[in-house]
Amino acid sequence: MTGPEDDFVNRLTLEQVDRDIFTGRCHAGAPQRAFGGQVAAQALVAAGHTVDDADRVVHSLHGYFLRPGRTGDKIVYLVDRPRDGRSFSTRRVKAVQYGEVIFTMSASFAVHDRGPEHQFEMPSAPPPETLEPYPILLDDAHTLHEAGLPEHSMLDMRFVDLDSDAKPVYGRPQRMTWLRTNDALPNDQRIHVCALTYFSDLTLVGTALSPSGGRVPNTDLMVASIDHAMWFHAPFRADEWLLFVQNTPVAHGGHGLASGVFFTQDGRLVASAAQEVLMRERRG
Amino acid sequence: MTGPEDDFVNRLTLEQVDRDIFTGRCHAGAPQRAFGGQVAAQALVAAGHTVDDADRVVHSLHGYFLRPGRTGDKIVYLVDRPRDGRSFSTRRVKAVQYGEVIFTMSASFAVHDRGPEHQFEMPSAPPPETLEPYPILLDDAHTLHEAGLPEHSMLDMRFVDLDSDAKPVYGRPQRMTWLRTNDALPNDQRIHVCALTYFSDLTLVGTALSPSGGRVPNTDLMVASIDHAMWFHAPFRADEWLLFVQNTPVAHGGHGLASGVFFTQDGRLVASAAQEVLMRERRG
Repeated sequence: MTGPEDDFVNRLTLEQVDRDIFTGRCHAGAPQRAFGGQVAAQALVAAGHTVDDADRVVHSLHGYFLRPGRTGDKIVYLVDRPRDGRSFSTRRVKAVQYGEVIFTMSASFAVHDRGPEHQFEMPSAPPPETLEPYPILLDDAHTLHEAGLPEHSMLDMRFVDLDSDAKPVYGRPQRMTWLRTNDALPNDQRIHVCALTYFSDLTLVGTALSPSGGRVPNTDLMVASIDHAMWFHAPFRADEWLLFVQNTPVAHGGHGLASGVFFTQDGRLVASAAQEVLMRERRG
Repeated sequence: MTGPEDDFVNRLTLEQVDRDIFTGRCHAGAPQRAFGGQVAAQALVAAGHTVDDADRVVHSLHGYFLRPGRTGDKIVYLVDRPRDGRSFSTRRVKAVQYGEVIFTMSASFAVHDRGPEHQFEMPSAPPPETLEPYPILLDDAHTLHEAGLPEHSMLDMRFVDLDSDAKPVYGRPQRMTWLRTNDALPNDQRIHVCALTYFSDLTLVGTALSPSGGRVPNTDLMVASIDHAMWFHAPFRADEWLLFVQNTPVAHGGHGLASGVFFTQDGRLVASAAQEVLMRERRG
């Protein structure tokens, strides 16, 4: 975590108030609302600061977005340590602003172990170099950030041409997206994990909306991320291409579910994500 | 929540100590260790008791199993209320025994809304009546419960004949299981949701292990549920057949991921689940 020349690393830098209390600023999403992906990534940074054993790496997180964060002011991250066991360290984080909880997260850190191995093969997709960069400033991801989505300069996203508006079918990818940061990131796996946490909140909303042809901003729908879960299976670099293969099993009652797995370009399945999305008709 | 004639409902019955503090007993898994599915279901009951508005129903939960619970003694459930908003109520629950946190969970409750709808079609599967009941006492689900898995008398599980030991392929179900409780449950959706939470912890471990031909109990592997996430999309009955369509995207570094969706027999996708599984070689 270095100087001001590294914009993305700066976005993850927190100030330590006490052993398990940190503050950060979340400008992403300004002027409207703090971008959820940044809040989740900062919460993960806070949790990680309280895990002393460097051999314990984060392998999963589960968060809930409770209230919009404000971009002009500090967010306080309060960390609980429910367990430091022989293999696992578990942390709970509350992100607070103006006395209100805006985000909660649990995350688990573990030593690397050995066990049986398997993985899905990567579905075939054209290489990212053959696809057009997506103009993320006009992304369909979040109404919350429509006025100031700040990621266009940081992230290169390239959508594989699928019929994403078609009815979802079990087993068929609904959307496939290549993504990587535009700039190189430091050789610190924690940075890459936080980057993926940050960016994984950008596309799942659009995936959940795609079968209904929904686009955000959408004046008929209220759209937001409700929760966010990630699992990290193996080391990866977020500044090298990852293929995010996503589907959306269901939308009903104003909520939709989307999930996906991330492959490196050479086919290793390195992370998974799931998110429930609020997608409800505006009340009269 | 009624008298002793209703065994399953009894398993979910808690005693209220204070407004947001409850105790319960978890005999499932006795004499060895408390069955995680029951602890998760009781935590969900505790959270639900603190949501006053009956129109807010649980739509998701995310839990971590931190320590084995002991079956002989009370478990204390401490509930936090991070938010009661206009549409959502969010709760965090800590399950404590002997001063140690054994399980943490966040759960979200919401009013029913309207929005775009879609769902996967149910994969074709032979009807449950044509399949053999699975002898759950010998289930391959949990070493933790090998000595006393108590669900054989409560649950009817029937596995569809798939080549579950084959290499997982994106889009192909790895395991499909029909399940329902043997006895009728009361007409209270909360009971059915808790029942599914309870029982969904039974099969995902086996799904994550199936590609490596792993079976539990397995003297070479240490096996346990690490976390558990569920999303409830629409009302259902746990005493009527549900098809649990599961896959396992990856296992690496001593952990595996398994997830699945539940369909009613008439093809409605009513719930989803995801679980990371500890499946590591025993250390020397």
